[in-house]
Amino acid sequence: MSHNSFGHLFRVTTFGESHGPALGCVVDGCPPGLALTEADIQGFLDQRRPGQSRFTTQRQEPDRVKILSGTFGDDPDQSPRTTGTPIALMIENVDQRSKDYTDIKTKYRPGHADLTYEAKYGIRDYRGGGRSSARETAARVAAGAVARKVVPGVTIRGALVQMGPHGIDRSRWDWDEVGRNPFFCPDPEAAAFFETYLDGVRKEGSSVGAVIEVVADGVPPGWGAPLYGKLDADLAAALMSINAVKGVEIGDGFVAATLQGEANADEIRRGADGKPLFLSNHAGGVLGGISTGQSLVARFAVKPTSSILAPRRTIDRAAAETEIITKGRHDPCVGIRAVPVGEAMVACVLADHFLRHRGQVGN
Amino acid sequence: MSHNSFGHLFRVTTFGESHGPALGCVVDGCPPGLALTEADIQGFLDQRRPGQSRFTTQRQEPDRVKILSGTFGDDPDQSPRTTGTPIALMIENVDQRSKDYTDIKTKYRPGHADLTYEAKYGIRDYRGGGRSSARETAARVAAGAVARKVVPGVTIRGALVQMGPHGIDRSRWDWDEVGRNPFFCPDPEAAAFFETYLDGVRKEGSSVGAVIEVVADGVPPGWGAPLYGKLDADLAAALMSINAVKGVEIGDGFVAATLQGEANADEIRRGADGKPLFLSNHAGGVLGGISTGQSLVARFAVKPTSSILAPRRTIDRAAAETEIITKGRHDPCVGIRAVPVGEAMVACVLADHFLRHRGQVGN
Amino acid sequence: MSHNSFGHLFRVTTFGESHGPALGCVVDGCPPGLALTEADIQGFLDQRRPGQSRFTTQRQEPDRVKILSGTFGDDPDQSPRTTGTPIALMIENVDQRSKDYTDIKTKYRPGHADLTYEAKYGIRDYRGGGRSSARETAARVAAGAVARKVVPGVTIRGALVQMGPHGIDRSRWDWDEVGRNPFFCPDPEAAAFFETYLDGVRKEGSSVGAVIEVVADGVPPGWGAPLYGKLDADLAAALMSINAVKGVEIGDGFVAATLQGEANADEIRRGADGKPLFLSNHAGGVLGGISTGQSLVARFAVKPTSSILAPRRTIDRAAAETEIITKGRHDPCVGIRAVPVGEAMVACVLADHFLRHRGQVGN
Amino acid sequence: MSHNSFGHLFRVTTFGESHGPALGCVVDGCPPGLALTEADIQGFLDQRRPGQSRFTTQRQEPDRVKILSGTFGDDPDQSPRTTGTPIALMIENVDQRSKDYTDIKTKYRPGHADLTYEAKYGIRDYRGGGRSSARETAARVAAGAVARKVVPGVTIRGALVQMGPHGIDRSRWDWDEVGRNPFFCPDPEAAAFFETYLDGVRKEGSSVGAVIEVVADGVPPGWGAPLYGKLDADLAAALMSINAVKGVEIGDGFVAATLQGEANADEIRRGADGKPLFLSNHAGGVLGGISTGQSLVARFAVKPTSSILAPRRTIDRAAAETEIITKGRHDPCVGIRAVPVGEAMVACVLADHFLRHRGQVGN
Repeated sequence: MSHNSFGHLFRVTTFGESHGPALGCVVDGCPPGLALTEADIQGFLDQRRPGQSRFTTQRQEPDRVKILSGTFGDDPDQSPRTTGTPIALMIENVDQRSKDYTDIKTKYRPGHADLTYEAKYGIRDYRGGGRSSARETAARVAAGAVARKVVPGVTIRGALVQMGPHGIDRSRWDWDEVGRNPFFCPDPEAAAFFETYLDGVRKEGSSVGAVIEVVADGVPPGWGAPLYGKLDADLAAALMSINAVKGVEIGDGFVAATLQGEANADEIRRGADGKPLFLSNHAGGVLGGISTGQSLVARFAVKPTSSILAPRRTIDRAAAETEIITKGRHDPCVGIRAVPVGEAMVACVLADHFLRHRGQVGN
Repeated sequence: MSHNSFGHLFRVTTFGESHGPALGCVVDGCPPGLALTEADIQGFLDQRRPGQSRFTTQRQEPDRVKILSGTFGDDPDQSPRTTGTPIALMIENVDQRSKDYTDIKTKYRPGHADLTYEAKYGIRDYRGGGRSSARETAARVAAGAVARKVVPGVTIRGALVQMGPHGIDRSRWDWDEVGRNPFFCPDPEAAAFFETYLDGVRKEGSSVGAVIEVVADGVPPGWGAPLYGKLDADLAAALMSINAVKGVEIGDGFVAATLQGEANADEIRRGADGKPLFLSNHAGGVLGGISTGQSLVARFAVKPTSSILAPRRTIDRAAAETEIITKGRHDPCVGIRAVPVGEAMVACVLADHFLRHRGQVGN
Repeated sequence: MSHNSFGHLFRVTTFGESHGPALGCVVDGCPPGLALTEADIQGFLDQRRPGQSRFTTQRQEPDRVKILSGTFGDDPDQSPRTTGTPIALMIENVDQRSKDYTDIKTKYRPGHADLTYEAKYGIRDYRGGGRSSARETAARVAAGAVARKVVPGVTIRGALVQMGPHGIDRSRWDWDEVGRNPFFCPDPEAAAFFETYLDGVRKEGSSVGAVIEVVADGVPPGWGAPLYGKLDADLAAALMSINAVKGVEIGDGFVAATLQGEANADEIRRGADGKPLFLSNHAGGVLGGISTGQSLVARFAVKPTSSILAPRRTIDRAAAETEIITKGRHDPCVGIRAVPVGEAMVACVLADHFLRHRGQVGN
Repeated sequence: MSHNSFGHLFRVTTFGESHGPALGCVVDGCPPGLALTEADIQGFLDQRRPGQSRFTTQRQEPDRVKILSGTFGDDPDQSPRTTGTPIALMIENVDQRSKDYTDIKTKYRPGHADLTYEAKYGIRDYRGGGRSSARETAARVAAGAVARKVVPGVTIRGALVQMGPHGIDRSRWDWDEVGRNPFFCPDPEAAAFFETYLDGVRKEGSSVGAVIEVVADGVPPGWGAPLYGKLDADLAAALMSINAVKGVEIGDGFVAATLQGEANADEIRRGADGKPLFLSNHAGGVLGGISTGQSLVARFAVKPTSSILAPRRTIDRAAAETEIITKGRHDPCVGIRAVPVGEAMVACVLADHFLRHRGQVGN
């Protein structure tokens, strides 16, 4: 069982609410002997950290990670290494600013989990969304940083490929561009457009959705475990579990439904290295739930931030009809900061499947 | 761990290959006292059974289910009931016709899992696709029939809403139509068109993809378990684990990415029964991973059958370049028979989450 | 979750009742490429099979195993091999003789699970004990036969070391004796005594308990996973899950509680091979939940068969006070047939921990 | 998978080393709405805390627990309550005194996990035993305090019933005595004897084992889940997972092996309340893996502390033969402080099985 855990051999359990003392995770099953310091993790957290541009929430959180367990080193000239025991990572919540929670305490915000948490549990930590806050994704990013250490030959990169109805031009895809604009966008012209576009959305107090693509290069053939531990099934769950995600695709995804068999099935030739060389990658690197050795390609759709300035009709805890305006420091496009989160989830799934494969098959 | 299991409290483990002696599943954790006979299950299997129209494979399999354990009844006037112990369901493979497997034994069929299974395991049951055959989905359908008994107030229905590039007209949606055409299509005009369209595809020896929608009505608010046991995350994994599925959406899915916040967040009023009444259902019945009480709406994209008559370039086990034609009895649109399979997976996920919810919260 | 499963990477799910159509198991996660036939499994089942001496139940069950899935071989000169997919094993129930179940249907047999199954589930398959029948252990033995293939360098042997209050003389321990008497007893003199002793017990319609010891040689150091996946914790669960088992010990077990530190902690020297050489094995081959490389030693206590001819006071389903005599074909010492079962459980635990270790650590 | 987790619906994951920054646990799946404060947990931690008598280690650790997540309360007049989300509990390590670790760093202490951790992981946090330190049991006790809240009608009490070879006199059993002596001993005369006895052991720098009994009253019939989720199987794993435990018994345990059927099977009468009334409790409250409604009785054997002053032969990391004396602040009878730990583990198992039962059966 795993309400708040994911993975099996590389297993992550997260905890924490938006405005409690701390959030974090326990990473269990990590192989021993991997060099790991807080700095290794911090770099990825900084990518996700709010307040870095006007296009993300202005909440000020340093998101400073602390390793509580699971690493050890007695040689001052060497990095501490993982010991094979649970790695507990903690991020203290700093910006718990005193705020008027009256509205959010009694009213259910449309598009948020307020009503469903209360329907389920009969109690709700309403401060900043509590457990359902996107803040929890910091724990995922921290875990993902550890996961990357487990699969060193694999490169996992994410990019925003659509904002609202506006897709990028894939012919201009440049991974280096991703780090040069505040949108993790690989198309510089689209990024320039998004700047104007999102400013407009932001100024009107609205929000917009996005589509994120994560690509993993260097995954060898053979990872994955049919039939319910399929690599793509686990990716789908991992990405769908991210806040605000409403759809997941592998490879061609929904476009595959429109194709005929000849167009979809990737033909195979013998590569210069004697290995299989696929002539296309409609499959997104997975066949039968097992990696093909091609690039692993996953996409996910993020809905627009539900916290907007326009008044929305809702009810309160007494079931009386009312309206709510969600003020505060919100991301106009929460999909942007979902890029490092998506990467982290893919990294965790791959680390898990690498270990699972090695366990069963031995290489 | 769960290579071949899914669910937690309602847990299904499947086994079997296309051309071995039998396939089936073990359903563990089923509540006791539910009336269950082979006939209850057989009806759903018959929906998925091949050979019922010219639009599905002509392989002749009775798909006769046998209950090996987990039910008991000593009153001849009453149906046997589940006992709370594992329910083992077996379907013997009958149509294991002698066939020339030379081609498929040595060559990797593009779009199939031949190459990946061999890369992973170093051995492959090539007869009819072995474990990766769509035949395994019979076990899912059988398990789903049991799952429906667990959530008696819930109605789970699936429909084909797109074939190749051709979507249905949702204004003509009629659930009763689904049973009247060989496509599980709720739009009679689209169904008529698909008949002609798919005949064309079939006659040219090709295949085409499809999009399936599954709707569950009667799910109460509160099912689901944030954050990694989210109802939508588990649905995503369950649907993505079906053969040939490449994408999954909840509610508006990828369309949600194109929306602004005002359009996406479903407003709430007080219903006549005093309960929350949502004015729309962009969320597809899930917020924060927990059911809202609205209809649960999931869609998945099925790629075109990879077995086609057109010769495709590939390599053989010795890595020599060659071509392959996949003759035989194949579905021109495997998405059609995915409809009862998708329903079954949704039923299993809901049964599991009902029990998980009841375990933690007690109602 | 795992009501009826055990293990993680090497995962066994059993099903079946005493008098249903069949019982069996699904073994998931088995490494591919292992030679496996029904004959490999049958040999172990024959050891556990009833009716082989007057000291076990006279129920006639061939316990013929059938492999339903998970192996494949197209070379007639070679054994089929495991494919890495689920191995389903089925044993049909043959000796479902028509019997008068009136008593057992309405009355709760003391020492049996009749009352507790009914308290839990509200329904009970009373025929031969249903799911709680020792017959289920056949599935364990079948799974254990597969598990042994996974850890080829490991030898797992069990022996009966105590019957009723009568222990064996360990100075006469001879593994070869185990196969020469109907008690799996390594001490020939004790075996001779048990023959007379158990005949007496049997003739008075009574029963008696036993202690079984299982020893695994060849387990390398490093298997096990602290802290809740400890090798000894998993052994304890596996052995305690066997019908009628009431106690489990590792190494010195309860005797360790009587010792002082000097006597208990096994000293270490450098062996001729440069490896650690322990001077004693009070620990039973496990320290901190991880194997030491010494012999793994586990013992378990089996209570006397509860089915006896002496009338016992009990109540019926209407809570009326009554008596019951359990006639029929019962083992006077169910501990005897627990020997192959205990071996099988140890084999499954070791196979699982071998794969888990290889997954995390890579060797 | 669960190297460092236990339980399913009530799931505990622990982390932390003896001399790292902190240790603790994440409790997932706890029902919502339970009043829970740090004080509720602290009381149990104080029972386990070292340094409270001369019979436990003099290491000074306040063992102050901090709740990081999972509770919420906005009413100052009410206790915070659990929210159904993960409860993270942290205990900072305070007494990390600078110490000379040269010996323990390079030599393997007999009876400790030094050698096995290193054999498995190739790296070892040698400070105070690292992850294998008994200090980890603080996290278990903290989790157990939460578990007790989940099963409010159940009383879980532990007692030391044997120290070294010296058992208590059960006719003098008085639960109130348990809190009056430093041994958790229910027999005041035995406690007086243990004071002298253990002083002797302590002064000679030695140690001694113990047997602990945990009794749970108020468990209703029906908890437990055959066959591999048996209540007794889960108890066996939970107790065997505690540091230094080498044996576990349920009810009569190993004594059951010596009995004949008549003596072992507890007869049943109709109680004054109409419910089954057992005339004895050889079974220890479990039949077929399911609770009978009687007292649940489990016992476990704790080996003597391996840290003793007598020099012991061992090898070092270079495989050279040497000796080691384990100085420092050690419990002469680590079994004493195992009493609250055993209670906690039983509480966790019961909480889990209560929720599992409710999930499957609904009451």
